[in-house]
Amino acid sequence: MVVGILDVDLCGPSIPRMLCVEKPEVHQCDAGWVPVYADPQQQLAIMSIGFLLEDSDEAVIWRGPKKTALIGQFVSDVAWGELDVLLVDTPPGTSDEHLAVLENLRKHRVDGAVLVTTPQAVSTGDVRREITFCKKTAVKILGIVENMSGFVCPHCSAIEPHCTSHPFCLNTCTDCVCAGSVPLDPLLTATLEEGQDFLQAFPESSTYTAISQIVNTLLSSLDA
Amino acid sequence: MVVGILDVDLCGPSIPRMLCVEKPEVHQCDAGWVPVYADPQQQLAIMSIGFLLEDSDEAVIWRGPKKTALIGQFVSDVAWGELDVLLVDTPPGTSDEHLAVLENLRKHRVDGAVLVTTPQAVSTGDVRREITFCKKTAVKILGIVENMSGFVCPHCSAIEPHCTSHPFCLNTCTDCVCAGSVPLDPLLTATLEEGQDFLQAFPESSTYTAISQIVNTLLSSLDA
Repeated sequence: MVVGILDVDLCGPSIPRMLCVEKPEVHQCDAGWVPVYADPQQQLAIMSIGFLLEDSDEAVIWRGPKKTALIGQFVSDVAWGELDVLLVDTPPGTSDEHLAVLENLRKHRVDGAVLVTTPQAVSTGDVRREITFCKKTAVKILGIVENMSGFVCPHCSAIEPHCTSHPFCLNTCTDCVCAGSVPLDPLLTATLEEGQDFLQAFPESSTYTAISQIVNTLLSSLDA
Repeated sequence: MVVGILDVDLCGPSIPRMLCVEKPEVHQCDAGWVPVYADPQQQLAIMSIGFLLEDSDEAVIWRGPKKTALIGQFVSDVAWGELDVLLVDTPPGTSDEHLAVLENLRKHRVDGAVLVTTPQAVSTGDVRREITFCKKTAVKILGIVENMSGFVCPHCSAIEPHCTSHPFCLNTCTDCVCAGSVPLDPLLTATLEEGQDFLQAFPESSTYTAISQIVNTLLSSLDA
């Protein structure tokens, strides 16, 4: 499976760090910008504004129209090649980035949106607004992922919920599928920090099981 | 002390929920919109787009220029009255909201910015870019607050760090003060969920001490 990741969080690009592809040079070919590959088999192609900055501490102080223009270029001027899936990572909200992505991808095909929340009510509030956004823009919701659903205590190994509410209650007022929950796991954080492959490093962990389940749920929603 | 809170996270307003002032009506007076007060003594005045929406699940699907215009109104058309401090809560990033706040507050006075991070490198990367933003726009950095610095396990009561890095390392490359750290405390989350006053409810907790220390550090940076 060949996957592209387009990071449109222009003011806070985190994909290069998480996938350990910081500071590569972006090259041009006849078909446009060549994406950066995270693996030698070239099955994971990435484009992020992080690759275009000379210094990773540089601030992208851009208003909406400039962000919209670059997102258009990221969709049309990158030589993505043949992809099975293009995953677009957006910042929170329902503003310029989200509208620009939809406008530019409509002509290809938008399978749907994956909404990410944490269990706190302030976060589920944001997700409710994003659900409204998807309904207004006729984007199918593939699933809701609950991040930081509990804490895997390295001291006592218990998975402790860190608050009482739960986004599954979103199901009571919407018809969205909850794709699964990922606990706050210090091992997962550490591997993302260091750009390691968590799934290869900790296949026995409960967090591995949680992530695999989410991937399978989302992939089968694509086939459906 | 009379404090105003201006919530300019227009796509994800969370202040009304956290301060338990959801769904009040915003009134007009001769001087403009009357802010919503969180306390009977009227010492905490709040304005948020959350008050202007008929339904809290409504999505604010606005591009930058419209967000910029409303932020201008929030600064100039709200009858804030005599405030000792106006605290502006922004979304993450360095875009329309941040530029609009600065443009509109310059004529009054901007004491400085408080930057909030979590210990993960992807978050401290965002804060480094925000530091660059503050330097470029000549805004003093009053302090950096580290949120979710550890987890207060309700099972074994240990405060466990949830990753190995630490934003204090930001000090090695910047001249910013670290104002303090707040752990991920299920009690704090629960009180914010329910709009209760954590400082009144749990004065004996270590999280209370952590928050008080941050408040004192920031207040003394204002006097300096």
